[in-house]
Amino acid sequence: MINLDSNYLLDFTYRIFKSIGCPDNQAKVAADCLNQADLRGVDSHGVARLSGYVRLWELKRLNATPEMKIIHETPSTAVLDGDLGLGLVTAPHAMNIAIEKAKIAGTGWVAVQNSNHYGIAGYHSMLALDHDMIGISMTNASPLVAPTFSKSRFLGTNPIAVAIPALNEPPFVIDMATTTVANGKLEVLQRKGEDAPLGWTQDKDGNPTTDAFSLRNGGSMLPLGGDREHGGHKGYCLGAMVDIFSAVLSGANYGPWVPPFVAFLEPPANHVGSGIGHFLGAIRVDAFRPATEFKEHMDNWIKTFRNAEPIAGQQRVLIPGDPERILTIERTKNGIPLHEQVIDDLQKLGKKFGLVFDCPQKQ
Amino acid sequence: MINLDSNYLLDFTYRIFKSIGCPDNQAKVAADCLNQADLRGVDSHGVARLSGYVRLWELKRLNATPEMKIIHETPSTAVLDGDLGLGLVTAPHAMNIAIEKAKIAGTGWVAVQNSNHYGIAGYHSMLALDHDMIGISMTNASPLVAPTFSKSRFLGTNPIAVAIPALNEPPFVIDMATTTVANGKLEVLQRKGEDAPLGWTQDKDGNPTTDAFSLRNGGSMLPLGGDREHGGHKGYCLGAMVDIFSAVLSGANYGPWVPPFVAFLEPPANHVGSGIGHFLGAIRVDAFRPATEFKEHMDNWIKTFRNAEPIAGQQRVLIPGDPERILTIERTKNGIPLHEQVIDDLQKLGKKFGLVFDCPQKQ
Repeated sequence: MINLDSNYLLDFTYRIFKSIGCPDNQAKVAADCLNQADLRGVDSHGVARLSGYVRLWELKRLNATPEMKIIHETPSTAVLDGDLGLGLVTAPHAMNIAIEKAKIAGTGWVAVQNSNHYGIAGYHSMLALDHDMIGISMTNASPLVAPTFSKSRFLGTNPIAVAIPALNEPPFVIDMATTTVANGKLEVLQRKGEDAPLGWTQDKDGNPTTDAFSLRNGGSMLPLGGDREHGGHKGYCLGAMVDIFSAVLSGANYGPWVPPFVAFLEPPANHVGSGIGHFLGAIRVDAFRPATEFKEHMDNWIKTFRNAEPIAGQQRVLIPGDPERILTIERTKNGIPLHEQVIDDLQKLGKKFGLVFDCPQKQ
Repeated sequence: MINLDSNYLLDFTYRIFKSIGCPDNQAKVAADCLNQADLRGVDSHGVARLSGYVRLWELKRLNATPEMKIIHETPSTAVLDGDLGLGLVTAPHAMNIAIEKAKIAGTGWVAVQNSNHYGIAGYHSMLALDHDMIGISMTNASPLVAPTFSKSRFLGTNPIAVAIPALNEPPFVIDMATTTVANGKLEVLQRKGEDAPLGWTQDKDGNPTTDAFSLRNGGSMLPLGGDREHGGHKGYCLGAMVDIFSAVLSGANYGPWVPPFVAFLEPPANHVGSGIGHFLGAIRVDAFRPATEFKEHMDNWIKTFRNAEPIAGQQRVLIPGDPERILTIERTKNGIPLHEQVIDDLQKLGKKFGLVFDCPQKQ
């Protein structure tokens, strides 16, 4: 791993998105979304994915100049046709629509169809915070997860993000896949040649396994909870809910029909909708009680939980968002750790568009 | 266990609620909510709890004739003061407000403060189905669950329910605690003298344990996922979100301040809000796309998942709501299985109000 300067990576990402034709403001938000993933420690959703988006664009499975439009709406809802744009662009656009609706109706809810992979769920939910709103963000994704009792991969890692503002404390930010772990953690074990804990994956016949390569060999990721005895059916419920909100409400593809992110896999035939789907929500906190009063109680909630008595070996209890904040400070200072393979990939990507990738190393 | 006639239990429950002074329509909905819990197999939230509500009423911690009122609202939101009423009454009332708002604004969201235990979450969410709406229901509850890395019981089992209508298929209904298992399953193991799987609870020092009595001995339930390695921090996130939506938005008590359901425990001093809190939502599906089109896709979603290839030893993949539907058919026919202790309790309760409990046995 080599630590690279995060500002350089942000600018390079922006220039690549410009190079494929993204309008300036869209290239900026898309680059920011990938950069925030790297800073927050979600390495699988950062600049390492940049060449993947470009490959989808080359195959015309992604439109760099989408004409996004609202195709249905009510005072508190809308459906956005993403025109096959980057999810990194359609999701913030949808969240801004939700925020505008919440200003008038108290809440705003926007389902997006005809979109692509949207990066980290948390980025979009956090756009609501500056407006004293709670932000909610979810998306469906390529099927890798087996419903409880099934061998079939029918769900994506289908994340849920919820961002809630506080007053003097930092915001409360959930950003979680509805699986036991992210795929990135399996890849770490694969590189180390280590086994995975039981409950992370199952093999191709649906048996419990500790083989970190099981997913590559026809197995499936397991929903949060793992097996039935440990509540895996609840993770299945949550992943299913995300799929339905993101795609059945919006008119996107759901379940096994969700198109893959990776360019080497063809999208499934017989679509049931358009592209992949997202669901974004904004809740004005003063649609319930005065914003300052709400945020003071959030401060109290956060301080109370942070001061809960820790178990042996732990210094303190964390609040959702704490781990990402700690990493952001560390990585802003020390840079983003990238594999040489990713750096090589970025250099090739630069060359393709006549850009030089010559990022300063940190440390 | 003795199987008793569900209609008799429904009527007896109604008469008990009438006896403590509930208005007729409120006694009906409260009795129906407990009865549905029994039919759906959530034994811990059915008629077995009836005497618990009465004890709270005797202690004046529950108001049988609440004057519920909306204390704040916008086109898509409201805060309901439950006037210390039964949650079995305030939650359906709040859901009906949400439904009325959704008719006009597309969605409706009602936070409830100053309420009590509301029975099963699923009951309230399902009220939206007849209106071609998605229903959402959550509540906080007495603290029994430890946040990740904590010894302290700071969260309740904080359930989430989501009911989504289909066309010819039955509705998709999630009704889940945000813990690995319900407390009721621990009680079953205690009666059998069996151990619990790792990941269900921790002991009073926060160590992993298989002792089914750990919760009674100062330990805690674990959030969905169990320990950190298996994603327990995600269950903690979900339970925390339910707490904040139900209580920080509404002005109810949150975290360790949530008043206990059991009458022998005093409510905590230094309240941070009023009573316990709920959060109810209604989403008109045709605020996104035509209702029939949505429901046809739900049918397709349900049939697709139900036909996923099952793992060895399982006949088929279940859809959220299937297990409860199967039990409802079985229990409507064969009766509700109750412990002799519960039956004894109901007989005493009857005597207290001059009612005879003489329920026909089934089978």
